Amino acid sequence: MEFRARHLLGIEHLSPWDVRIILDLAETYVDLSRGATKHADVLAGLTQINMFFEASTRTQSSFEIAGKRLGADVMNMAMQASSIKKGETLIDTALTLNAMHPDLLVVRHPHSGAVDLLAQKVNCAVLNAGDGRHEHPTQALLDGLTIRRAKGRLQRLTVAICGDIAHSRVARSNILLLGKMENRVRLIGPPTLIPSGAAEMGVEVYDDMKEGLDGADVVMMLRLQKERMDGGFIPSEREYYHRFGLDAEKLAYAKDDAIVMHPGPMNRGVEIDGTLADDINRSVIQDQVEMGVAVRMACMDLLARNLRAARAAGEGTYV
Amino acid sequence: MEFRARHLLGIEHLSPWDVRIILDLAETYVDLSRGATKHADVLAGLTQINMFFEASTRTQSSFEIAGKRLGADVMNMAMQASSIKKGETLIDTALTLNAMHPDLLVVRHPHSGAVDLLAQKVNCAVLNAGDGRHEHPTQALLDGLTIRRAKGRLQRLTVAICGDIAHSRVARSNILLLGKMENRVRLIGPPTLIPSGAAEMGVEVYDDMKEGLDGADVVMMLRLQKERMDGGFIPSEREYYHRFGLDAEKLAYAKDDAIVMHPGPMNRGVEIDGTLADDINRSVIQDQVEMGVAVRMACMDLLARNLRAARAAGEGTYV
Amino acid sequence: MEFRARHLLGIEHLSPWDVRIILDLAETYVDLSRGATKHADVLAGLTQINMFFEASTRTQSSFEIAGKRLGADVMNMAMQASSIKKGETLIDTALTLNAMHPDLLVVRHPHSGAVDLLAQKVNCAVLNAGDGRHEHPTQALLDGLTIRRAKGRLQRLTVAICGDIAHSRVARSNILLLGKMENRVRLIGPPTLIPSGAAEMGVEVYDDMKEGLDGADVVMMLRLQKERMDGGFIPSEREYYHRFGLDAEKLAYAKDDAIVMHPGPMNRGVEIDGTLADDINRSVIQDQVEMGVAVRMACMDLLARNLRAARAAGEGTYV
Repeated sequence: MEFRARHLLGIEHLSPWDVRIILDLAETYVDLSRGATKHADVLAGLTQINMFFEASTRTQSSFEIAGKRLGADVMNMAMQASSIKKGETLIDTALTLNAMHPDLLVVRHPHSGAVDLLAQKVNCAVLNAGDGRHEHPTQALLDGLTIRRAKGRLQRLTVAICGDIAHSRVARSNILLLGKMENRVRLIGPPTLIPSGAAEMGVEVYDDMKEGLDGADVVMMLRLQKERMDGGFIPSEREYYHRFGLDAEKLAYAKDDAIVMHPGPMNRGVEIDGTLADDINRSVIQDQVEMGVAVRMACMDLLARNLRAARAAGEGTYV
Repeated sequence: MEFRARHLLGIEHLSPWDVRIILDLAETYVDLSRGATKHADVLAGLTQINMFFEASTRTQSSFEIAGKRLGADVMNMAMQASSIKKGETLIDTALTLNAMHPDLLVVRHPHSGAVDLLAQKVNCAVLNAGDGRHEHPTQALLDGLTIRRAKGRLQRLTVAICGDIAHSRVARSNILLLGKMENRVRLIGPPTLIPSGAAEMGVEVYDDMKEGLDGADVVMMLRLQKERMDGGFIPSEREYYHRFGLDAEKLAYAKDDAIVMHPGPMNRGVEIDGTLADDINRSVIQDQVEMGVAVRMACMDLLARNLRAARAAGEGTYV
Repeated sequence: MEFRARHLLGIEHLSPWDVRIILDLAETYVDLSRGATKHADVLAGLTQINMFFEASTRTQSSFEIAGKRLGADVMNMAMQASSIKKGETLIDTALTLNAMHPDLLVVRHPHSGAVDLLAQKVNCAVLNAGDGRHEHPTQALLDGLTIRRAKGRLQRLTVAICGDIAHSRVARSNILLLGKMENRVRLIGPPTLIPSGAAEMGVEVYDDMKEGLDGADVVMMLRLQKERMDGGFIPSEREYYHRFGLDAEKLAYAKDDAIVMHPGPMNRGVEIDGTLADDINRSVIQDQVEMGVAVRMACMDLLARNLRAARAAGEGTYV
């Protein structure tokens, strides 16, 4: 089986084999990044452009380091809020960039579907670095790699995703990936923060941490995204922490060897107890960051191979 | 004939031969940027600094990609508005940068003449990326390359430049370049947006699109720069579009094979009809962006050769 | 004698031998930066991250150019004010970055001691690019190199540091370095701008330029840092210049061949007369900038050697 995708727009489009191919290659990039010379030239001669229509120090840095370690010519473009008010402007921006002949375009955008739209207009490989509430595929892949390394497998596990699921593209991509790999996924949160279509996604829904965490192998906490809660229910931080914040007491409901995850940046004392977050026997939060660079190196490497092959085969358009 | 310039401050200083040398070399960089490995090391070992005192995502990106593709060590400096209030501060900034031994200094500045002033203070090659209402030479060169590729020549053409000419350094550099190459240049716009000295520039002036476009080979639309119209006449967008916006109907006044250009970013429905802008049979707007990277690669390559030759010849100062 | 440090947190921790080793190596990087090919690959395969929690175009650019000239993969992180309100956030940021496996972390932070704290949490080499009122070691080293080149030695000199010493980490690092190298240091300024513990630092204190400059070999002016004077005494610029601003008349109190220094950016007409600042017979202000790049290249090269040696020796942690 081969990885044949031209873009990485969402977990939705990946097969379980695709996931395995990405994670296996990422393992080699974990080793490279831990070595004495953390540089390879697999992307040499290619141009990577990071277009972030939403600020994200963490994700942009991770993609930037990944590209530079692989020898790409990397450029960050600061996209200002003013230039994205109209849909047509996004297309103009995409066409302008496309004319500069990038090979890898990493895009974050506040609107769901904007990255897919953009991918249809350019003839290079596009990586979705998060679009609205839709998908954040590299986050789910790095979470998958972290789980596989900690648990020895990425299947037949019980994974509890806790907190603000309704506003989270991280949750959505993880639900898709964990489902494809035949894991049991539970969502835990107040009903107002659970997406309405949750039941149809093949997951179990809980509004009580004790019940939801019972027997869990993995506890994945989410960031409370107050900035996305426009007009709706906003819980008080204190009450939220009391009911849904993860501390040692609530973690005791899960399996004895359950691991704790968080995509960052953390609100300590809101979603998670600070001491627990730092407990290297339970928390794999730093591993997630490390795996992030490796997974992004793997994704860009694989997409670049397909891009080169398609061009060598004389395919004029690449959409 | 050889290209002997030390700086690229304006089209004003270039001979027709210089223009040809730049455009011919740029053709090779069009090919490089379309190839599988879009990287050459002709600027390896050199330091390029982009100093933009005015924000410009498009032009800065183009210079950044150009430099990185040629192997330069490229640094962007975000110059804040606060540091340019006094003329002396610009000089201090220039002297500071100069002491870091850059080889190529790419400068955009809101004041006409500021880049020339700066070039007198440093001993490296300076490229003007736009200064006030004065010049924007790489824009005129990329427009020239786009025209030459579309029309097969860059002479004996009738070129209509339309819109807000008074505030446009793009127009000014294009008028100079097209005149040097023996083309017929027409300016079309409301009298308030035509520069007062236009008649002395060897151009014809029209305030009616039908008359001005009659027989034109090239129709170059300009961006309506409301941000530069301090206190003067500001036309309503609707009225402006009605009289001067380019659509299929007005384009019919030009030659049947006339091409449509715009330096971007476009205000669709103000200067130009969106459908026409996207019509690949008439619009070369995306080509302009592509030629931009290639022309900038060529200019930096040529200036770097002269810089190296001057240094090898033991010329202590380079001003 | 060998340079054995793992971090460059302050002049405080350096021996006179360390200073000599750094400055001697920096001399070779002055030559490299003046040469035709200003690039070496001694940091190739390493990742350098610049984390500036305070904006500083000058220092960040200097470190960025230094790293790129030595072949490192360099990334700038714009740290927003919002992310540093809590001490724990600094640690989270540090741990996140650390998980991306940087090799060289260049940090500027508004709080004294923050860089030391951060260095304890990461396993890479940390360079202090200025922390609060504490230290700015590369500034003192570049000042030392500038003095040594101008005077032929960096010992037995009389150095007058003038102006706003109380708020200056530049002054503090210079006092430490000049003291270690057996120079005589004088502080000149209004009593409100002299730090309370000055007498214990082995320096002489003056509040009169005539007395303080008498017989000085080096006159080091400081920037008046109004932004750091919270609530306290703020002198009028005119009065300040009259009493403490350096002009040709006051400079005549110093030795005939005394050199004039300023760390920049200058307030011309406040701390220093503009004509004097530009007088290449007396002012070494541009040399300081040039030496800055070379000293930073030397420091990063030395720290990278120690990092590689420690890793080759199998030292798991590097704190």
